[in-house]
Amino acid sequence: MSKTNPGRFFEDYKIGQVIRHAVPRTVAEGERALYHALYPARHAVYSSDEFAANSGLESSPLDDLIAFHVVFGKTVPDVSLNAIANLGYGEGRWLLPVMPGDTLRSESEVIGLKQNSNGKSGVVYVRTRGLNQMDETVLEYVRWVMVRKRGADAPAPETVVPDLAKVVPAEALIIPDGLNFTDYDFELAGEKHRIGDYEIGEKIDHVDGVTIEEAEHMLATRLWQNTAKVHFDATNREDGKRLIYGGHVISMARALSFNGLANAQMIVALNAGAHANPCFAGDTVRAWSEVLDKAETDAPGVGAIRLRLVATKGDSAAFPLKGEDGKYLPEVLLDLDYWALMPV
Amino acid sequence: MSKTNPGRFFEDYKIGQVIRHAVPRTVAEGERALYHALYPARHAVYSSDEFAANSGLESSPLDDLIAFHVVFGKTVPDVSLNAIANLGYGEGRWLLPVMPGDTLRSESEVIGLKQNSNGKSGVVYVRTRGLNQMDETVLEYVRWVMVRKRGADAPAPETVVPDLAKVVPAEALIIPDGLNFTDYDFELAGEKHRIGDYEIGEKIDHVDGVTIEEAEHMLATRLWQNTAKVHFDATNREDGKRLIYGGHVISMARALSFNGLANAQMIVALNAGAHANPCFAGDTVRAWSEVLDKAETDAPGVGAIRLRLVATKGDSAAFPLKGEDGKYLPEVLLDLDYWALMPV
Amino acid sequence: MSKTNPGRFFEDYKIGQVIRHAVPRTVAEGERALYHALYPARHAVYSSDEFAANSGLESSPLDDLIAFHVVFGKTVPDVSLNAIANLGYGEGRWLLPVMPGDTLRSESEVIGLKQNSNGKSGVVYVRTRGLNQMDETVLEYVRWVMVRKRGADAPAPETVVPDLAKVVPAEALIIPDGLNFTDYDFELAGEKHRIGDYEIGEKIDHVDGVTIEEAEHMLATRLWQNTAKVHFDATNREDGKRLIYGGHVISMARALSFNGLANAQMIVALNAGAHANPCFAGDTVRAWSEVLDKAETDAPGVGAIRLRLVATKGDSAAFPLKGEDGKYLPEVLLDLDYWALMPV
Repeated sequence: MSKTNPGRFFEDYKIGQVIRHAVPRTVAEGERALYHALYPARHAVYSSDEFAANSGLESSPLDDLIAFHVVFGKTVPDVSLNAIANLGYGEGRWLLPVMPGDTLRSESEVIGLKQNSNGKSGVVYVRTRGLNQMDETVLEYVRWVMVRKRGADAPAPETVVPDLAKVVPAEALIIPDGLNFTDYDFELAGEKHRIGDYEIGEKIDHVDGVTIEEAEHMLATRLWQNTAKVHFDATNREDGKRLIYGGHVISMARALSFNGLANAQMIVALNAGAHANPCFAGDTVRAWSEVLDKAETDAPGVGAIRLRLVATKGDSAAFPLKGEDGKYLPEVLLDLDYWALMPV
Repeated sequence: MSKTNPGRFFEDYKIGQVIRHAVPRTVAEGERALYHALYPARHAVYSSDEFAANSGLESSPLDDLIAFHVVFGKTVPDVSLNAIANLGYGEGRWLLPVMPGDTLRSESEVIGLKQNSNGKSGVVYVRTRGLNQMDETVLEYVRWVMVRKRGADAPAPETVVPDLAKVVPAEALIIPDGLNFTDYDFELAGEKHRIGDYEIGEKIDHVDGVTIEEAEHMLATRLWQNTAKVHFDATNREDGKRLIYGGHVISMARALSFNGLANAQMIVALNAGAHANPCFAGDTVRAWSEVLDKAETDAPGVGAIRLRLVATKGDSAAFPLKGEDGKYLPEVLLDLDYWALMPV
Repeated sequence: MSKTNPGRFFEDYKIGQVIRHAVPRTVAEGERALYHALYPARHAVYSSDEFAANSGLESSPLDDLIAFHVVFGKTVPDVSLNAIANLGYGEGRWLLPVMPGDTLRSESEVIGLKQNSNGKSGVVYVRTRGLNQMDETVLEYVRWVMVRKRGADAPAPETVVPDLAKVVPAEALIIPDGLNFTDYDFELAGEKHRIGDYEIGEKIDHVDGVTIEEAEHMLATRLWQNTAKVHFDATNREDGKRLIYGGHVISMARALSFNGLANAQMIVALNAGAHANPCFAGDTVRAWSEVLDKAETDAPGVGAIRLRLVATKGDSAAFPLKGEDGKYLPEVLLDLDYWALMPV
């Protein structure tokens, strides 16, 4: 009997099944430093213990996307090893900051199944939770992926498509305990713009671009213990290219968005996300954002801003998104819809 | 007088000589994070403080191979600066886990000398010890290298070839204090196979491959303060290639072996090792293992498994090793024989 | 109104103006480990807590150049975003060691302005200070850069050129509290040479070379939160090259200088510095040093050595510097003049 992991196929998933993903991970100052080396990350709450303390936090948490990547990486051997495509994200919420020394693990519950009409694959919906060493949920999100069937003759399961919210409602956002932006130092944070300075519908070109190298995306993807072979093995595709982990593009675009959104400090919800086109080494990634909504919160001085974050290998100043056919333009890499916290 | 280090030549070594290697090094969370970025390492004892504590350890130690690389790196300026070839390893034992904050240094004793018949070089055998800040030995191993002579007319020393054990006997393995696998969580560890599920002679293809980049192996090799110029200087060889540090291949293969040997948690002995062929950037490294032996230990729930770990730039599913001439096949990079600890 | 940072132009600077740079940064063990991965750094005070404690320090500080790069990186969005050239450094002094956990920020005072005769640009002189979380100055230096004007018709400011010391006088060097080299272990440090073994005028070829990769210099430059686009965006120049951050060459050369200057432990002053020619990925960096001066200090066993450190992509054994025309030779990358502390 083979000792290696063949991954799960479509017919291996059952509604209500809870998968406890392997290999818990303690994250600390080393992961934080690597995050700053891999991405041009400058949001002050995640860069400075002093700035975080002045914002009412104990000290600087690990970047929200470190939490996301670590939790996501654990699901790969169980959810996406035989995946054909990562179709979408939704109902994502960050529930607790992850502090250096915390140990994270992940669990996923199967909440939807829909066999494709070709009978060769199907869509699996899972709700994934990241838990810390106290078994507190730090993060949760829904992801749906298209997964191969082992055998075409396996019977189709009853179709269950979960009813997912298009957007996490502002009143469901969880604000970190103690967060307080009333003494916010805009000069130290890098920009003077508060939430009132942004208008719904406003688009921001983040200007800067980063050309990606193979070594960088592999270092990042390994760091999150995501071992999907497409990211590492140049013999895996006919063209010899390694597909860049979609989360690498998310972190790159989010870090680039500092220039224009320096005060969109903490990510608290992931409403939706699409990896519009694959990204490869040599691509120069740029980003633009659109303000989709704004909301108040109960925390002093803290507002919530809903943003579309688009990564492109083309000209971000042209705000590329979709063509007349409603499909993503070929230069668009990512279309992400999230809520962040910003001083009012 | 030149201020730089010319390295030692064959005639500079004397039997019984103890060389205290330079530049002690404090290792901590940063080295741990980098190890996870450089290699697809997922063994749970080294990934999670909680998992390590549940296995009877204080918290998660640094990977056994971090200890090896740091201790080895310090010996390079004194042992292998003028080396022609790294010939072998033996009698290696890990004696104490290395914890974040520990400071490591190395010492080597010359235990064998044999001039080659050409009179231009000779083989030097050293027993190297890695010591922590309490002067406790954390690791020891024998290495033998072929070293140039400064002058062909230097007299040959008396030949002394140490009598080395082919294999560290199971009863000589040192089990970390308190190690206990009776509450081992196989699901969190990533695989369900316990030592009883492996048969002597069984071969495991670890399936996954990683294509190596120049930046990655140089980051790794520098991290271990191994400064042998062949690894860093593209002008050093006529073909412009940089030779990859053999230890980089060891760590890559060991990390890949998680897929099929996720529960071979801790390395406790290095029986033998050969760098069969050089590895260069662009090579895709794969690995396979063979179960060579199994043994009991005194620690609760803990068994020992002796493994051959082979790295190849070819097809690991074909289990390549040696040709009919008894020589390593050209695609084989590494042949390593070690003992690891696994739940019974 | 654009939300992104357009940078300051020449006419935006006023004499006496103090710019408080954005994004404080907490530095810790992760940054230390990355420094060792990015550069072949081996100076023992920065490698080992034990060695540092034996030298009278609390524990191992972060490398002096980590402090420099972090402090420098913060100034880029305010000082050099529209810079044409980084012209020089002077009057640099390290005033306090930076310990893991410290949070650094930067401030710059405009101390000189001189419009160029073409009316299109001018030279700005700033004195930059790096401060820790207790608002203590850990580092200060003067830098002057040539900056574009926004409009050619903006009136020229009154010319003020600061009177800068050619060299920080030995009596102005600040020795870290408690530093004591009387029990210095030369064997562990890696070389036996004390300050008395070096003669003024002596040149040292550091022998080793490192070929630089794109991924490495980008990881380093991001780690210091230096976001100048020339370092990251391959579409920024017609030739598709990314200019390597000059500080990457400084750290590489300083680390290479270990071989011959292993005991030049701590950098305490930066007298002058010029980035003679640009450095690109694929260049093999080598280094040589010249002893410019020596001085006594009040600290037990501690002397000061003034060194010229030259980085070259050519043959360091030829000690390349300037041609007969007094201009830097094309293979010279860096000419740095600094004071370091060394056992007497």
